[in-house]
Amino acid sequence: MTQVGPGRPRLEPRRRAGQTPRAEILDAAAELFTANGYGSTSTRGIADAVGIRQASLYHHFAAKDDILDALLAETITAPLELAERLATSTEPAAVRLYALAWFDVSQLCAARWNLGALYLLPELRSERFAAFRERRDELRRHYETLSAAVIADAGDGAVPGAELLPFRLVESVISVRSDEGAAPEYAEKLIPDAILRLLGWQGELARTRTAAIELAGPHAL
Amino acid sequence: MTQVGPGRPRLEPRRRAGQTPRAEILDAAAELFTANGYGSTSTRGIADAVGIRQASLYHHFAAKDDILDALLAETITAPLELAERLATSTEPAAVRLYALAWFDVSQLCAARWNLGALYLLPELRSERFAAFRERRDELRRHYETLSAAVIADAGDGAVPGAELLPFRLVESVISVRSDEGAAPEYAEKLIPDAILRLLGWQGELARTRTAAIELAGPHAL
Repeated sequence: MTQVGPGRPRLEPRRRAGQTPRAEILDAAAELFTANGYGSTSTRGIADAVGIRQASLYHHFAAKDDILDALLAETITAPLELAERLATSTEPAAVRLYALAWFDVSQLCAARWNLGALYLLPELRSERFAAFRERRDELRRHYETLSAAVIADAGDGAVPGAELLPFRLVESVISVRSDEGAAPEYAEKLIPDAILRLLGWQGELARTRTAAIELAGPHAL
Repeated sequence: MTQVGPGRPRLEPRRRAGQTPRAEILDAAAELFTANGYGSTSTRGIADAVGIRQASLYHHFAAKDDILDALLAETITAPLELAERLATSTEPAAVRLYALAWFDVSQLCAARWNLGALYLLPELRSERFAAFRERRDELRRHYETLSAAVIADAGDGAVPGAELLPFRLVESVISVRSDEGAAPEYAEKLIPDAILRLLGWQGELARTRTAAIELAGPHAL
């Protein structure tokens, strides 16, 4: 039998996405949380889905909410890193915002499970998830800052408050994915394009898109 | 003791929003589903929150998913009725779409509980909720049809596929409400205004808003 964690024997052969036991646990939990609900999923159920003992799971995660926290982090760590890098870039704001929106929509669509559907869980309002909420707020503020810069560049073409909406349009792919049962392929072009138009920006989209994807480069999927 | 349902005595005095036992059950369930999670709420817990016996609850709803179905219906019945009426109106498409978006954002914000947060529950993908999903799809198609008509009126100002986004922008108030812990007061102006601009429509917003609110009139909150 394959060894899993510190010396615990595995009950069944590996059958999960992931190179490590930790990654397998996260993959199984993500599937169960999004398919059956967070409240209806137990650590025992997750261990069974991986094919390990519950005690082995506890070597990696002390509690179910630690697994949820790790999964939520996966949804914002990379876009937040990109947003921090873009904040110091000298590229035009429209290119930087396009890069962030394109990258974020792409990663929300490419993820194996639709983890953004967990953002609306009431559990996330507890103190346990304050650090996650703060990081997601940081990402939201990056969107708002870049959007305000695009509006400033574009003249007065946007309605007051429009800088609040690009972050919401990006996250709307979570609802589309949930409704359609699959990631919407059109979204990674439609949403960044629509965001710039919503902000009153009337420049050429095709050239901006090319520059944006190049700018996001080292983070590209 | 007050009588509740067919001859069952009430355990405690009324303390819930709602004129009838059915309305009180729905109010208690909406609070528990949105505050504690659907999976973590039992019909026993709902009955306790109303102050009635579990057997009394079953006179009104045979199962927990019947309560969820009734709550979900509350979120789309009125906008869907308005959308059906608007489909036969001879007002310009921009006024009709504004009326629908304004009314829908307003009712999603005014509802006592943020029930739209339940749209992403995995339970909703089951056959039990097929009828609700179909009605929400109908509402989505009304948005797409009106949005396509606005794009046609506005010339070629919108990016291809933009007609898919107004429905998503309207529903984004659910996320805002969840994040901010309160309904966003600015949304019922910002979102309909932004929707028309996103579709390339460059007419006067203030006059369109006035006409739209009048058109939605009989449905106004």
